[in-house]
Amino acid sequence: MPLGQRPGDKSESRYCGVETEFHDDMPHLLTESLSGGFDFIVAPLIDPSYRPSSMSNGGSGSSVLPVAASDLILSPSQWSSHVVGKISSWIDLDSDDEEVRLDSEITLKQEIAWASHLSLQACILPPPRRASCGNYAKCVNQILQSTSNMQLWLRVPLEKSEPMDDGSANANSDFSGGRMFDSWEWWNSFRLLCEHHSQLCVVLDILSSLPSNNSVGRWFGEPVRAAVIYTNSFLTNARGYPCLSKRHQKLITEFFNHSVQIVISGSLLHNISGESIKALPANDDDSHLEVIPTRLALRPYLDYVAYLYQRMDPLPEQERFELGYRDFLQSPLQPLMDNLEAQTYETFEKDIVKYSQYQRAVCKALIDRVPDENTSTKITVLMVVGAGRGPLVRASLQAAEETGRKLKVYAVEKNPNAVITLHSLVKLEGWEDIVTIISSDMRCWNAPEKADILVSELLGSFGDNELSPECLDGAQRFLKADGISIPSSYTSFIQPVTATKLYNDVKSHKDLAHFETAYVVKLHRVARLAPSQPVFTFTHPEYSKKSNERYKKLCFEIPLDSGSAVVHGFAGYFDATLYKDVHLGIEPSTATPNMFSWFPIFFPLRTPLFVPTGSPLEVHFWRCSSATKVWYEWCVTSPTTSPVHNSNGRSYWVGL
Amino acid sequence: MPLGQRPGDKSESRYCGVETEFHDDMPHLLTESLSGGFDFIVAPLIDPSYRPSSMSNGGSGSSVLPVAASDLILSPSQWSSHVVGKISSWIDLDSDDEEVRLDSEITLKQEIAWASHLSLQACILPPPRRASCGNYAKCVNQILQSTSNMQLWLRVPLEKSEPMDDGSANANSDFSGGRMFDSWEWWNSFRLLCEHHSQLCVVLDILSSLPSNNSVGRWFGEPVRAAVIYTNSFLTNARGYPCLSKRHQKLITEFFNHSVQIVISGSLLHNISGESIKALPANDDDSHLEVIPTRLALRPYLDYVAYLYQRMDPLPEQERFELGYRDFLQSPLQPLMDNLEAQTYETFEKDIVKYSQYQRAVCKALIDRVPDENTSTKITVLMVVGAGRGPLVRASLQAAEETGRKLKVYAVEKNPNAVITLHSLVKLEGWEDIVTIISSDMRCWNAPEKADILVSELLGSFGDNELSPECLDGAQRFLKADGISIPSSYTSFIQPVTATKLYNDVKSHKDLAHFETAYVVKLHRVARLAPSQPVFTFTHPEYSKKSNERYKKLCFEIPLDSGSAVVHGFAGYFDATLYKDVHLGIEPSTATPNMFSWFPIFFPLRTPLFVPTGSPLEVHFWRCSSATKVWYEWCVTSPTTSPVHNSNGRSYWVGL
Repeated sequence: MPLGQRPGDKSESRYCGVETEFHDDMPHLLTESLSGGFDFIVAPLIDPSYRPSSMSNGGSGSSVLPVAASDLILSPSQWSSHVVGKISSWIDLDSDDEEVRLDSEITLKQEIAWASHLSLQACILPPPRRASCGNYAKCVNQILQSTSNMQLWLRVPLEKSEPMDDGSANANSDFSGGRMFDSWEWWNSFRLLCEHHSQLCVVLDILSSLPSNNSVGRWFGEPVRAAVIYTNSFLTNARGYPCLSKRHQKLITEFFNHSVQIVISGSLLHNISGESIKALPANDDDSHLEVIPTRLALRPYLDYVAYLYQRMDPLPEQERFELGYRDFLQSPLQPLMDNLEAQTYETFEKDIVKYSQYQRAVCKALIDRVPDENTSTKITVLMVVGAGRGPLVRASLQAAEETGRKLKVYAVEKNPNAVITLHSLVKLEGWEDIVTIISSDMRCWNAPEKADILVSELLGSFGDNELSPECLDGAQRFLKADGISIPSSYTSFIQPVTATKLYNDVKSHKDLAHFETAYVVKLHRVARLAPSQPVFTFTHPEYSKKSNERYKKLCFEIPLDSGSAVVHGFAGYFDATLYKDVHLGIEPSTATPNMFSWFPIFFPLRTPLFVPTGSPLEVHFWRCSSATKVWYEWCVTSPTTSPVHNSNGRSYWVGL
Repeated sequence: MPLGQRPGDKSESRYCGVETEFHDDMPHLLTESLSGGFDFIVAPLIDPSYRPSSMSNGGSGSSVLPVAASDLILSPSQWSSHVVGKISSWIDLDSDDEEVRLDSEITLKQEIAWASHLSLQACILPPPRRASCGNYAKCVNQILQSTSNMQLWLRVPLEKSEPMDDGSANANSDFSGGRMFDSWEWWNSFRLLCEHHSQLCVVLDILSSLPSNNSVGRWFGEPVRAAVIYTNSFLTNARGYPCLSKRHQKLITEFFNHSVQIVISGSLLHNISGESIKALPANDDDSHLEVIPTRLALRPYLDYVAYLYQRMDPLPEQERFELGYRDFLQSPLQPLMDNLEAQTYETFEKDIVKYSQYQRAVCKALIDRVPDENTSTKITVLMVVGAGRGPLVRASLQAAEETGRKLKVYAVEKNPNAVITLHSLVKLEGWEDIVTIISSDMRCWNAPEKADILVSELLGSFGDNELSPECLDGAQRFLKADGISIPSSYTSFIQPVTATKLYNDVKSHKDLAHFETAYVVKLHRVARLAPSQPVFTFTHPEYSKKSNERYKKLCFEIPLDSGSAVVHGFAGYFDATLYKDVHLGIEPSTATPNMFSWFPIFFPLRTPLFVPTGSPLEVHFWRCSSATKVWYEWCVTSPTTSPVHNSNGRSYWVGL
């Protein structure tokens, strides 16, 4: 039964499993576990004492595999809903002993074949036994490339030894020397060998001590499917009940937020009648699980996990609405080339926060422009360029009312469909005397007079990517020499991210063009590896005749305590100064709260980039333009050099 | 006029050029140079004092570019055959000064556009001015991705500073720190940014001191089109004539062998009337070339280069025959699945060396098998499995004659077409009493008696890749328990190589499958980065029931004085022990001389692998098999991790 009900949360993380030992009475094992409150079991499928080479006929002969239960013992839906298979943990595919290696290869294949036959959703692969796991990965890759839909979850400990005191100097060169251990590097090497296969996922073993937050953070960009918590990682509260450290609690909550399922493992170490078992003999390690009755006895741990789940705040309505967009790649809008649809206007007009920021900016501009003593005489000419269906016209008029300034408004809009709506809005609101509607592209309109204030919202997720600079260059012809542009400037930002899910989605198209395209995406399963840095800034009005082409070289430093990392691409954001101190943006450290008009943008890399601990990450971004289009190019030159992406805008561009 | 006639050599390296300064009388410049004996000039196309930003209209306006000569001044064929364009050397696309950067971008584009208009075959790009040349590479890449067939040759000095005395320890981590300079890394970074574009090539500036041989060796895997030799790199011989150091001579000869053209640059520094100019004022550097008359005066340097060319040994006939195969990728034969054609038999039967090695091996085996006292009584049963059109039958019979042993021969061949030829051969030679022809696959033939000696030649370039192990496993049923297999064993070898040409040819197919295929190829424009190492060994007969699957992990160390390197894939070879000390193979250090039956094999990597100085290169190779096929998988796990190539033989396999 699920851990609880959390409005809006339909993720897998509501289900909690329990790890069991090999047992040949599978139905009993399952019934016990389910009645103990667990949703699924993680169980070995084959007797762990089995070795192919010790069978007659030298292995793959006619003998019957010593399975835990025949397929008939449980129904197909029981197998697939309630059992995650556990591949024998003795296997060692990189052993120097060839017999062990061959036995391991045969067993792995046989167990996976059996699990496939049972239609299990997933099998857990034991942790690699050595730093070098080339043959293990090659065998798993062969299975992944040929099999069914079954997922394979590689089990690795959540473990990373920190650099020594002399760390910063040596960290750079010693990562491969084996002095420090970082289980993420195991995983990374394994999944690189397996080509980032989308059915290869991770199970993390959560130990009683946790690595640094930066180090743990990397995993949120990885396909972590489950986290195993051992009963000996639990502390004991005053009443003798199991509980977890603050850091563990926070981690588990993060797992819940990232659809990671919890699995409890180990034996009962807490006396629920009131007395806790303080210490255990040192030789009682996790691998010795107790026999069946324990499953019921693990209830206190399950209850604690359920308590953590139920304690979480409910998802805010906006978050719930956006759940379906998480990590879903969208092509950016091209509002200049295409005309937006009514539905799109409808969605974005609901963003109250955005328009109230514009209203604040217009207020301040009006006050600066018209001294209190002139309010009755002076009429401010305000032009909304890209008026759409009118929300910025409304915000401007509200600002005029709020400040008691008189306004004459021109609403310029190139989409003839939106102009129709504008006309009926003006009529409906009785703004006919104040608002003049102009059905024209701002770049060609011949204005009858010049504006005091030019208001626009032509910003994309990356600031200039919907061609605000080019549009406003065309519009500033009719701004007075001392006129104000709202926004007055905007800056794009990027930050390197690990985003296995996004990388795999881009890769699934099997072409170059998708790797050279920027996407709008609600980032969720992502590890942000370093603070974002500014890329391109545009200021309006701009009288310098400076081109709108830009080039920026950036150098990111991933914190040393993160360890090595893989970069799948760059998350992009913007921040806009509307007027003076009124800003609006999505750059994480300064993002405007509760504004939902923009998801981040994502620039992928064609090849995932490995960044060793302490290596600087040097990135180049270009904004390029021709007579008909604007595009970005990007590349990396350190720690290794990538090709320049999207040369000449061959894969992705924005039409002028 | 060419440097000379060398039988069989049709390469570009016969032509020698001269570098000139900007001059607006191009026809005169060209006539002078050609009459001075040069074949082409390397000349600036635009006045070097030109700066777009100092023109009226701010650059790209209506002013006329200050070109060296209008297109009408020379004929199209003169332009394309005799002029290599030289892009202005002042350009600095990574300057921090934005005006310089923008001027440079505009000038580069204008000059290339002009050169394209003139249909020049190539333009030389000046050396990057900074360690980081991201913007330079991006601009060149935009040109490469959009232009004509014109080649762009990046000019770089042949220069590498060696590690300090404390070198080996620091070399690993400091390569990016700028303490050591290695011009190859410039080139590598530049061409990685340009995606290994096939029209991006190199011109090397040869300085008076040369880096280590290992370091220079890397360039032979790169698309070096020309080498510039400065007059001040020449020494003076006893008679006052210019000459080059032994190392320079050797290098120039290597260039000739790799189709690299020589260009002479600089002013006359040798008094051909007998007195050499010993020293020059220090401020007289190469950039101050003298005026036109010098072109004639450079004749002594040209004569010396021509002398080096003419002094080279003529190409051996076999080499001349194989010229067309250099660096040309071929699919390996599948003689087991397909039947070879007559032409193929014809070609390979001409390999006298191979069959004489077989004859030597059979001789030794016969002598060991039949003591001198038994030669008249004992008849040795020898079976040639895979007899083809009979060359091994002939070699065996010649061995019998040579040693005075009596032979009974079975010639087993599965190709019915070859069997027809075999029958007529036997009749023609009168071997009917000795040779029995069996038209059958050796794996299914039921032999009427057992063999003393089993002779086969089922070897591919990589030893076992034509499935000799599987065939001989099938044939050893009819070998006597103490019988001899010729060959008795064979081993495959690999070695990491830089091979830009091969990489580009594989890439041109634009699919994954070609990157996961092994090719037979006469390697020529290749840098061999480390000595080859053994991979898989097979021994015959083999009674251990051991499978023919194999796994080998190899670790290569690229010599420290090579510097960093890029690995495009692995060259593969084999060596076979026919019998006792008689071997035959193509592994470079032990290759059988004058044997031409096998070119090396080449296993590509999907992504070129950068190996920093001193980093170990860890490689994994697998030989895998199923009921119907055999294939290889391969990957790299250090310095970075690649995907496993050719999983499950999805792209490349050999049919059983």
